[in-house]
Amino acid sequence: MPNWLLPENIADVLPSEARKIEELRRVLLDNFRLYGYELVMPPMLEYLESLLTGAGQDMDLRTFKLVDQLSGRTMGVRADMTTQVARIDAHLLNRSSVTRLCYAGSVLHTRPSGLHATREPIQIGAEIYGHAGLEADAEIQELVLASLALANISEVRLDLCHVGVLRALLASDPVAKKHEASLFALLQAKDIPALDLISEGFSPVVRQALLDLPGLYGDISVLQRARQILPQLDGIATALDELEYLVKLAGSAQVTIDLADLRGYHYHSGVMFNAFVPGLPNAVARGGRYDHVGEAFGRARPATGFSLDLRELARLMPLAERKDAILAPWGRDEALRQKIVELRQAGEIVIQSLPGHDNEQDEFDCNRAVVFDGGNWILKNVG
Amino acid sequence: MPNWLLPENIADVLPSEARKIEELRRVLLDNFRLYGYELVMPPMLEYLESLLTGAGQDMDLRTFKLVDQLSGRTMGVRADMTTQVARIDAHLLNRSSVTRLCYAGSVLHTRPSGLHATREPIQIGAEIYGHAGLEADAEIQELVLASLALANISEVRLDLCHVGVLRALLASDPVAKKHEASLFALLQAKDIPALDLISEGFSPVVRQALLDLPGLYGDISVLQRARQILPQLDGIATALDELEYLVKLAGSAQVTIDLADLRGYHYHSGVMFNAFVPGLPNAVARGGRYDHVGEAFGRARPATGFSLDLRELARLMPLAERKDAILAPWGRDEALRQKIVELRQAGEIVIQSLPGHDNEQDEFDCNRAVVFDGGNWILKNVG
Repeated sequence: MPNWLLPENIADVLPSEARKIEELRRVLLDNFRLYGYELVMPPMLEYLESLLTGAGQDMDLRTFKLVDQLSGRTMGVRADMTTQVARIDAHLLNRSSVTRLCYAGSVLHTRPSGLHATREPIQIGAEIYGHAGLEADAEIQELVLASLALANISEVRLDLCHVGVLRALLASDPVAKKHEASLFALLQAKDIPALDLISEGFSPVVRQALLDLPGLYGDISVLQRARQILPQLDGIATALDELEYLVKLAGSAQVTIDLADLRGYHYHSGVMFNAFVPGLPNAVARGGRYDHVGEAFGRARPATGFSLDLRELARLMPLAERKDAILAPWGRDEALRQKIVELRQAGEIVIQSLPGHDNEQDEFDCNRAVVFDGGNWILKNVG
Repeated sequence: MPNWLLPENIADVLPSEARKIEELRRVLLDNFRLYGYELVMPPMLEYLESLLTGAGQDMDLRTFKLVDQLSGRTMGVRADMTTQVARIDAHLLNRSSVTRLCYAGSVLHTRPSGLHATREPIQIGAEIYGHAGLEADAEIQELVLASLALANISEVRLDLCHVGVLRALLASDPVAKKHEASLFALLQAKDIPALDLISEGFSPVVRQALLDLPGLYGDISVLQRARQILPQLDGIATALDELEYLVKLAGSAQVTIDLADLRGYHYHSGVMFNAFVPGLPNAVARGGRYDHVGEAFGRARPATGFSLDLRELARLMPLAERKDAILAPWGRDEALRQKIVELRQAGEIVIQSLPGHDNEQDEFDCNRAVVFDGGNWILKNVG
């Protein structure tokens, strides 16, 4: 096997793709900043306990483990930055006020989440801590949609769901509660025959509700239908009200309600967002409320946020155009040097051709050249 | 031990510092682009053989190892991006032309390189492949100086050295050659008594030259002195000529020659750069020629480049100023919404205060507010 083969689901990013990722990264971070989000950079490595605090078994399996030579303790390479940012809010900033934080960086996964998924997503996201009200969720929803718009993705479907519905059902039926993990998986798969089978011993009201959930999918009218057919439980009523509030604030975006879509059920505590775009089977951006995330760090704060993979988003964007550039000769002439400095200060890409290598630029389209003419270095159009 | 303590020499980057790193990252990458460097993003993880190819034992010890669950093979987390970028040049781009590549990303080290050094530098750098001439080294030298100037660091000393001097001496004396590793370390430490002891059996000419090297340190006049006192060997003459060429191209920068400074001797093949700034004992930027780096990938190309740690460079910059921002109330009023959109489009940071959390912004200086006055949403100066 040659030295340069990369591990499966790991890839180099070559110039045209790298350019797109870099531009997208800047545009998204700049937009977060316009909303008042402060950038933080958590480390790639942490002690495993700290990294997996409140993160669940799924994250544990996805996390690469390493031994720290300095302490002998086990460290993990981050597989997700959300809990890291919650730790920063809880302990380092330690503010009682509302805190808006954003981040961007590589995360590593031991296994890909799908056949063609990368094991090294570039995660970018934004979080609000310290406000339990729906206004914070609304701002995050707005940021999800704004981020996709900034990536020039026009066809977006935002799926909203809410953990409160299933939680309220399970709280009302101890038998059903015992099957929480299976029910979660079956609802996720919308597997009605299996739901029918597993729910045989449940209370009839909960059983019917579980069978109804996969069908409660569609536009805002789903909420009306849910109010009619789901049991009258406080948790369900609150969840449906919250969803209605957010759908009404979504403006012209296409928003869908899916009461059985429970991705992230284990760590979320309220509304959940999943954004879908044509051509990608999985959600391109995910988020929601997860108020208990800081508990493990001894300081629970209301929290809501979202994140997406820059690599995946960049793949959906059109290829970057070849960029105009200027070819200049190599030389020690001070006037030539000055000319090149001026052009670069004006934002022009100026490539000095190294002796013997004229016209060898690949990414750049050198449609102009610096040439010596009439005693001066001037800019000239070329083929 | 609380959950949130980080491993030694690993740290979170909080907002003010993160902002500086992000701005510096953009400014440096943008400048590389103005010179025609194309951005690439090598992966965090590679099979160990590929990652360590041509990298030497030092890099091996610094590299974290992991088992790939998909293949059972050993992977490494990159401790340096230089060989990765050389692999991309050699195999993925596979051009015969001159190729300029740049990169920026985290690398991880098993052990810190110094007491207070981070184990997670953010490496940024630029490389030229395919041109063996000194013009490429001159361009890299210019980029090193330009990068530090862009970080507002005015007092910079660029140290130049050349592996050719010691290589030529060792090639002329088989006895000395056997002590290559020790000689390298002793010259690095400028330990003249130990050099005197180890060189007892060497040829008198080589012995005297080794004892002279630590004193050959200073401005361009050092080259004149070196020509007089070092032995007349082709390799030495070439090395001194190359250094002279680069010093003359360095313009107004303070350049120092240090013929015993051999950091990177093992993988470099020609001139080496080390940039120093006040307040940092170690070089802030390093680089040089390493023509054999692609050999292990089956395609040796001339190569020269440099890299630096963005974290370290950002620490040397003054703290970012608090940024002016505008506070806006939360609300569903369409005219308010429109006003906020307009302000953000004009580049203003607008923070919507969430109900119950007025005036809680920490990083931002909200010196203006959007208020409802006379039937319109207007901007007003505040305390």
